[in-house]
Amino acid sequence: MPIFAFQTVLHSSNQPPSLLYPSNPLRSYTSIPQTLNLTLKKKTKLHVSSRRSDYFEQQRVASRAPEERSFTAQSLGTQPTRVYAGYSIYKGKAALSVEPKSPEFAPLDSGAFKVSKEGLVLLQFAPAVGTRQYDWNRKQVFSLSVGEIGTLMGLGAKDACEFFHDPFKGKSEEGKIRKLLKVEPLPDGTGHFFNLNVQNRLLNADESIYIPIARAELIVMNSAFSFILPYLLGWHAFADTIKPDDSIRSNLTSSRSGPELEWGR
Amino acid sequence: MPIFAFQTVLHSSNQPPSLLYPSNPLRSYTSIPQTLNLTLKKKTKLHVSSRRSDYFEQQRVASRAPEERSFTAQSLGTQPTRVYAGYSIYKGKAALSVEPKSPEFAPLDSGAFKVSKEGLVLLQFAPAVGTRQYDWNRKQVFSLSVGEIGTLMGLGAKDACEFFHDPFKGKSEEGKIRKLLKVEPLPDGTGHFFNLNVQNRLLNADESIYIPIARAELIVMNSAFSFILPYLLGWHAFADTIKPDDSIRSNLTSSRSGPELEWGR
Amino acid sequence: MPIFAFQTVLHSSNQPPSLLYPSNPLRSYTSIPQTLNLTLKKKTKLHVSSRRSDYFEQQRVASRAPEERSFTAQSLGTQPTRVYAGYSIYKGKAALSVEPKSPEFAPLDSGAFKVSKEGLVLLQFAPAVGTRQYDWNRKQVFSLSVGEIGTLMGLGAKDACEFFHDPFKGKSEEGKIRKLLKVEPLPDGTGHFFNLNVQNRLLNADESIYIPIARAELIVMNSAFSFILPYLLGWHAFADTIKPDDSIRSNLTSSRSGPELEWGR
Amino acid sequence: MPIFAFQTVLHSSNQPPSLLYPSNPLRSYTSIPQTLNLTLKKKTKLHVSSRRSDYFEQQRVASRAPEERSFTAQSLGTQPTRVYAGYSIYKGKAALSVEPKSPEFAPLDSGAFKVSKEGLVLLQFAPAVGTRQYDWNRKQVFSLSVGEIGTLMGLGAKDACEFFHDPFKGKSEEGKIRKLLKVEPLPDGTGHFFNLNVQNRLLNADESIYIPIARAELIVMNSAFSFILPYLLGWHAFADTIKPDDSIRSNLTSSRSGPELEWGR
Repeated sequence: MPIFAFQTVLHSSNQPPSLLYPSNPLRSYTSIPQTLNLTLKKKTKLHVSSRRSDYFEQQRVASRAPEERSFTAQSLGTQPTRVYAGYSIYKGKAALSVEPKSPEFAPLDSGAFKVSKEGLVLLQFAPAVGTRQYDWNRKQVFSLSVGEIGTLMGLGAKDACEFFHDPFKGKSEEGKIRKLLKVEPLPDGTGHFFNLNVQNRLLNADESIYIPIARAELIVMNSAFSFILPYLLGWHAFADTIKPDDSIRSNLTSSRSGPELEWGR
Repeated sequence: MPIFAFQTVLHSSNQPPSLLYPSNPLRSYTSIPQTLNLTLKKKTKLHVSSRRSDYFEQQRVASRAPEERSFTAQSLGTQPTRVYAGYSIYKGKAALSVEPKSPEFAPLDSGAFKVSKEGLVLLQFAPAVGTRQYDWNRKQVFSLSVGEIGTLMGLGAKDACEFFHDPFKGKSEEGKIRKLLKVEPLPDGTGHFFNLNVQNRLLNADESIYIPIARAELIVMNSAFSFILPYLLGWHAFADTIKPDDSIRSNLTSSRSGPELEWGR
Repeated sequence: MPIFAFQTVLHSSNQPPSLLYPSNPLRSYTSIPQTLNLTLKKKTKLHVSSRRSDYFEQQRVASRAPEERSFTAQSLGTQPTRVYAGYSIYKGKAALSVEPKSPEFAPLDSGAFKVSKEGLVLLQFAPAVGTRQYDWNRKQVFSLSVGEIGTLMGLGAKDACEFFHDPFKGKSEEGKIRKLLKVEPLPDGTGHFFNLNVQNRLLNADESIYIPIARAELIVMNSAFSFILPYLLGWHAFADTIKPDDSIRSNLTSSRSGPELEWGR
Repeated sequence: MPIFAFQTVLHSSNQPPSLLYPSNPLRSYTSIPQTLNLTLKKKTKLHVSSRRSDYFEQQRVASRAPEERSFTAQSLGTQPTRVYAGYSIYKGKAALSVEPKSPEFAPLDSGAFKVSKEGLVLLQFAPAVGTRQYDWNRKQVFSLSVGEIGTLMGLGAKDACEFFHDPFKGKSEEGKIRKLLKVEPLPDGTGHFFNLNVQNRLLNADESIYIPIARAELIVMNSAFSFILPYLLGWHAFADTIKPDDSIRSNLTSSRSGPELEWGR
């Protein structure tokens, strides 16, 4: 008897095409354990009805929405070109997509900008439904904050970590959905398991999705994190303003010296 | 009896809004010790009068000044857009804000530019005055030089370091204010304590502010430092001038060879 | 009796000029084992005829083609300036050239772009035919995927790894050409051997090419990999779109909040 | 009796102003050994005449030349703004200036560019002639190649390395000048000694200059190296050409597939 039954068939309109038919099929890596794949948590008590709740419908719509919105804005000629870039790992029983999301900026009265919301990295886990086919309708998402990204970047070969999120924290539905991401070393030391457990009391569902991430894949992931982190914090936008000639001009109107910067140099 | 009494109420006009109401409230990190928070140094002999001296007033004004100055310059249409970006860590009894500050450039007679002053990273420590509320009027600041940033970047899990600054060094008031930043490993190895002690003889004050920084937070900080360091040294501005077609043109008018560059290749 | 005989003379039209006459001749490194050089695998059963097959001719043409194609496109005035950049290591009996190759992007209906193919790093191995002269007609190539790059980036001083590629995988000629790249620590711990073995049943050839890579050279290589990896994944293109003023505009037409991003902050 | 006597007085026209009067005077670092400073090699047999040879005069001219040349080109309105950026370390008896130098590019018939010469990092050592005053007329220079930079980046706390250069290698005066840069761990483990020895048979001179570099300073140096390395190899120029819309256009006129790139994907 299958513990985890897929009752939702694939609807092409809901699938990110680059992920359903991966453009980078797996090759043979000697150093990557091909036998380690998604295994379903045995103690999962999962009874998914064939009809999903509004919450998941809502999620699908949200999943399609960004590009449509962007299109509208594009028509106005004011929007910069959007680019979707990620890093996807395909294994036998699940896929993991890692994708950065921009920080937000707010204007100040002075005309300057400040970072009003740090960016994040969105993890999307999708179960396999066939050879190199993944059901992105059934995906589970988990947003890594800057601090959590730092935790992953510092994860040693034998280290484990876990992050707990409540999407409705501070809202009336707080506690209704509980997400737990566990990252644990593989027994043979060749990488880590990523295990996302989502308890959804609104749907009376408790799903777990596992994917083994090889050491080399975590290195790629962390290398990408290391690149994107300053962008998530908005430091690149500050850095972009550091220009020799602007510096001169700026020095004419304001001096950096003073007690504020501590040094009267 | 409270050792450290806050007699200054919050004045909204003096508070950086992004820090007083943090946009990234703490989430639950399993790997981060939530119980470790700001603890006041027991041996602190602190008697702050309800009326602050000119020095601190001056500091508040300086704190507001940059944006206002920028606004003025902006009106002239010559200033590039300023961006304020930092990395803030909020704990139960204190907050730490980490913010890069630009290097300065000077023009040479040739029309070229050279870096005349290295950039730095400004640390701002503010005590908590309520749940997720921090009194930025009471902040203490400490500017990390490029070398000190390097020290933090090389700090091992069990390493400690300390930096001493005198803001009036070489001035008539030398020795009147002494700042000591100590970074020490947490007893349980989960991160480091940042402890800033400021002895101000002008105010007859001796304040200490503590904040525990988790390992992951130090990783984020150091990742941001690693990104910004070349900008603080101005190497990005040099790097921006390395372009294929300019190289050709440049080679026509000058040769890099010669004893100066050592190799007659 | 020579095991590996070079019957193809050098044809200047087929040689990358920067590699045949290396612009950076080897200097003396105390820390680099100069005595370690290309050694031919003893068990190689190699009988190369003086006339190469179509496959290799094809390869030479392909080797020249990119620039010619670029020239044609250039004439149309639509192509950006191409730049060829690599990192070349010249040793006594072989040279290794490391060169990044761009990812590919695909437009979405919305006007946005997504990464449709990850970039890669092309390794080219050429045997020496004289002092600092390498026969690039006889080069063997191996494309490192992003995951394989990650494996090299994580390679410890005593670690080994190997990658197997079949250029015709999934095609009718699958298995006709088998490429195996082995990276093994040098016995004296000063670096790694890179050994590319190519079994070509179409040509009935089995060639092995060895080159010792010093620790410092692997550090340079991995530093370049670390830089280029986000570009191979297209994350730089996403990052380039993160701008303060665009963020404002973007926030007016769409909100990042919602179940998709998990946090209702 | 002084072993090393400075008979050349300071000529302002020959001094890089930013180095003679350092804009970043040393502060107190607890973690940096202030007592470790330049010590003159005891066995130095140095007899410098008060009148320097043509070689050194030539060197001074070369030292001033780049900016003047740039100025001329600048007047033509074709040259991009030059920026001089370095990283300078000032100790009691010597100063070390670290400065990147651009790679060179060559145009191909196709209109594309290739890197024709890798960039390098110029080390300049100057002896102190007073408190925070350094005699840049007496400087000794050493150009680090990309491979040597990699060696420094991989240098462990207890590692040593040395590089030997002959500026006239392959020329008629080969062997007349021998430069040896030794980098050795400090006895107390707080950093490394940089010792540059220059034997100049043309001048019958044998000079050694020592400077202790603290661990944190080497971290800053290596962080700057890590940033600049891809630029020295020209990979940034390649990376700058990777753009979503160009990719589309490029794909219409050429396909990356084919035996050259190994994968028929």
